[in-house]
Amino acid sequence: MEVKKLRIAMLGLGSVGSKVVELLVKNTERMYQMTGVEIEIVYGLVRSFDEEDKQKLAKKFHFQLTDSLDHILNDETIDVVVELIGRVHPAKEYIVRALEAKKHVVTANKDLLAQYAVELLPLAYQNGVTLGYEASVAGGIPIVHPLKTQFATDQIESIRGILNGTTNFILTKMLTEALSYEAALTLAQELGFAESDPTNDVEGIDAAYKVMILAQLAFHSYPKFEDVDVKGLTTIQPSQLAVAKEFGYKIKLLGEVRALKDQLSLRVTPCLVAMDNPLAQIDNETNALLIKSTQIGETFISGPGAGAAPTATSVLADLQALILKKELGSSNQYPQAFYENTTYSFLKSAPKEKFGIVMKKAKATQKFTNDQLADIQKIGHTTFLEENYEWLVTNPLSSEALTALLESLTKMGTVIGSIPFID
Amino acid sequence: MEVKKLRIAMLGLGSVGSKVVELLVKNTERMYQMTGVEIEIVYGLVRSFDEEDKQKLAKKFHFQLTDSLDHILNDETIDVVVELIGRVHPAKEYIVRALEAKKHVVTANKDLLAQYAVELLPLAYQNGVTLGYEASVAGGIPIVHPLKTQFATDQIESIRGILNGTTNFILTKMLTEALSYEAALTLAQELGFAESDPTNDVEGIDAAYKVMILAQLAFHSYPKFEDVDVKGLTTIQPSQLAVAKEFGYKIKLLGEVRALKDQLSLRVTPCLVAMDNPLAQIDNETNALLIKSTQIGETFISGPGAGAAPTATSVLADLQALILKKELGSSNQYPQAFYENTTYSFLKSAPKEKFGIVMKKAKATQKFTNDQLADIQKIGHTTFLEENYEWLVTNPLSSEALTALLESLTKMGTVIGSIPFID
Repeated sequence: MEVKKLRIAMLGLGSVGSKVVELLVKNTERMYQMTGVEIEIVYGLVRSFDEEDKQKLAKKFHFQLTDSLDHILNDETIDVVVELIGRVHPAKEYIVRALEAKKHVVTANKDLLAQYAVELLPLAYQNGVTLGYEASVAGGIPIVHPLKTQFATDQIESIRGILNGTTNFILTKMLTEALSYEAALTLAQELGFAESDPTNDVEGIDAAYKVMILAQLAFHSYPKFEDVDVKGLTTIQPSQLAVAKEFGYKIKLLGEVRALKDQLSLRVTPCLVAMDNPLAQIDNETNALLIKSTQIGETFISGPGAGAAPTATSVLADLQALILKKELGSSNQYPQAFYENTTYSFLKSAPKEKFGIVMKKAKATQKFTNDQLADIQKIGHTTFLEENYEWLVTNPLSSEALTALLESLTKMGTVIGSIPFID
Repeated sequence: MEVKKLRIAMLGLGSVGSKVVELLVKNTERMYQMTGVEIEIVYGLVRSFDEEDKQKLAKKFHFQLTDSLDHILNDETIDVVVELIGRVHPAKEYIVRALEAKKHVVTANKDLLAQYAVELLPLAYQNGVTLGYEASVAGGIPIVHPLKTQFATDQIESIRGILNGTTNFILTKMLTEALSYEAALTLAQELGFAESDPTNDVEGIDAAYKVMILAQLAFHSYPKFEDVDVKGLTTIQPSQLAVAKEFGYKIKLLGEVRALKDQLSLRVTPCLVAMDNPLAQIDNETNALLIKSTQIGETFISGPGAGAAPTATSVLADLQALILKKELGSSNQYPQAFYENTTYSFLKSAPKEKFGIVMKKAKATQKFTNDQLADIQKIGHTTFLEENYEWLVTNPLSSEALTALLESLTKMGTVIGSIPFID
C-alpha cells in the first residue's frame, strides 16, 4: 500500500506548539492506521537560532529549524502550515502568504480569526486549501466542526457560553471563598490561570473574539469587534455573587450570540444564570456552551477551554479532519471485552426494631467473601415513606466476592438491591 | 458558477424519514449557499403504492415513489441512499447493495451499525463511498463526528452516558413523583416516550447497541452484543432512588465503555452517580455523554437523544459533512449587529433601618422611566456578611429606561450594580 504523507511546517513552538509536535509524533502511527496518511513535521520557524529549547525540540523530533518563511513556502512538498504564534501580527501576514502559496493552514489564533476570517476564508477557498481553527474557540471543546456539520442545517437561535476560563475561575473563587476580585485575580495568576496582564480576559475581550467566531460559524456573519457589547467583570463584588446565589442564580461572564429577527445580538457580560441552567454548574476554569436551535433544541457541551494539551488536541483534530476523506479503518486494538470488578453499593431495608443491625454486623461480612475482602467504605441509614433503609458501599469486588457478600447480608435482612456507582 | 447536485434516494418515510425530507427541502437553498452543492430528493422507496401519506409527501416535495430498490440502484445519477427503515432486516441487505452500487449511505440505524459495522465500513471503504451514521447514537447530539476528529488523536479512557431517553424519563419520574416503575412506564407510554413494547429500552438493549458503536468509534474495536454486560432497570424501586438521593447519588441507567490496560469494559447498568457529576443533572428524556480522554480531560455533552427533528438534523449533518470539502462560504445573512433590550436585575444594598424601603418604593420607580414602564417582576432581600441587601428584577428594558430607573433607585440608597439575567 502506498504511504501518503502530510508534510507540516510549524510556525510557533511555544507551549501549545511544542505540545502539538509531541502529540503528532506520538500519534503518527495511530493517525496512519486511521487514515492511511502519515504525518511528518518538516520545519519549525524560529526568529533566531539561539533558542536552546527549540533546538532541543527539533533535534528530539527530527525536524529542521528555519528563520525563513520563504524557505518553507517555497518547499513544494509542504502541505500544511500550523500557525501557533498568536495575536494578529505577523501571524496574519504569514497565514495570508501560506494560503497564497496553496498550503493548508491550521491555527488556534482567535484574535486573528475573529477579526480577519472575512478575508482569510475566501482566500483559502480561492486557493483550494483549508483554513482550520477548531482550537480558536473554547480550547479542547469540539465546537467549530460541529457548527459546520451538526448545526449547519439547523437554525441556531442562540449560543451562550462560558468562553473564558480565567474569569470563570475568578468568579468561582469570589463566590466559594468570598474573595475580593483583586484577591481572586492574584490567586488565578499564582496558579497560572491568569496572565500578568489580565486585561484581555477580565475586560471580556478574549470572550468577545470567541463570540465573533461563533457568530461567523452559526450565522455566516462577520461582525466587527465594535459590534459586540462587551462588559468585563472588574466591577463585580463578592456581595453581588452571594446575593445572587441567595436569589437562585450564579453570576457568570457569558459570551452570547443570538438571532433576533433579521439582526444579531452579540455581547459579553456578567449575567445572572438560574441554578438549573447547566451553565450555572460550570465552575473554575472550565468552559461551556449552550446551543439553542430550532430542530435539535438544546445542546450543552463543556470541557477544558485552555491548556496546552487540550488546545494541541484541537489542532490535531483539524489535521485529522483535513486528511479524513474516508471512514475510519478497522484496526482491532482491543479484541476482547472484559468485565471489570467494580465498586458495589447495597441498598438494604431493615425493619424498625433492627435498625442498626446491619451497621454493626457489616464488618463481619468480610469473612463470607472467599477470594477477596469486602471492605466497607461507607455505611448509613435513611427513612423513606416511613420505612427504614440501611446502605453500605464496598471496595471494588469480584463477582464471586459480591455474590458471597450478598448472601451473607440476606441472612441479616431484606437486601433490596445492589448497584455499581461512579463519582 | 456550475451547480453541483447531490441526488438522494430515501429508504423509509416514517416520522424521521418524512422529517428529513421536509428539512432537506427547507434547507436546500442554505446548504447550496454553504457548500455550492444543491441537494435533490429523487426517490422514496415504499413497500406499496397504497400508502396515502407517502403519496402526499412525494407530491408535496416533488420526488418519485418506487417499490424497486433495483430501480434506485441502477440510476447512476443517485449519489446517496438515506436508510431510515430501522432494525436489521431488510435494512442491512439494502445498505450492502447500495454500497456495492457505489452509493454513499446515511443511516440512523443503531441496531445495524452496532452489529454489522465491522462488515459495512470496510465495504464502504472498498467501494470508495461513505457510510454516515451520526444519528445512530444519541439522536441530535453530535458525537459520531467529534469522535472521528476531535477525539481521534486523543486517548479515550472512558465514555459514560445516559444513552436512552425512555429509561431516563422513567427514573426521573420514579424519583421526583415517587412513582413505581410500572406507573412511570405507563406515563412514558402515554406521553410517547416509550413504545408499547418497551423491552429494548427498559432491558438496556438499545443502550447496549449505542455502547457498541461508541466502542467502535473510540477504540476501533468491534465488540459483539454478548461482550456488553447488560442490565436494565426493571428491578429498580422508588425506595432505592430515594435512599440513593439521601446518600448523595442519583440512580441513572448508564452505558459505559472503558479502556482497561489492553481490554475494554462494556456495560449498561443502573448506576449510582454522584450529584456533582454532570450526568446526575440530566433528567427526563435528555441524553448525555461524559468523555474522559488523556489530553483533553473531561468533555461533557448533553441534548435530545431522540425525536424526529433532532434525529433528522443528524441525518442532514451527515449529508452536510459528505459534501463539505471546503470551508463555509461567506453569505452575509445578518449584516448588522444589534443590542437587544434585556431584562435587568438590580442588586441594592440598604442600611438596616431602611430595610424594606426599596420594596415599598419599587413600584414608584415606574414613573421615572420615560419611554417604557419598568415592571418589577421579582423583589427580595438577603443578608451577607452582616450587611443587608435588597434586589429586584424588571421586565426587559431599553437602555434609556434602565438608566432612568437606576437614577431613581440611587436616590433611595446605594445601588451596587445592575446585571442581565437568563433562566
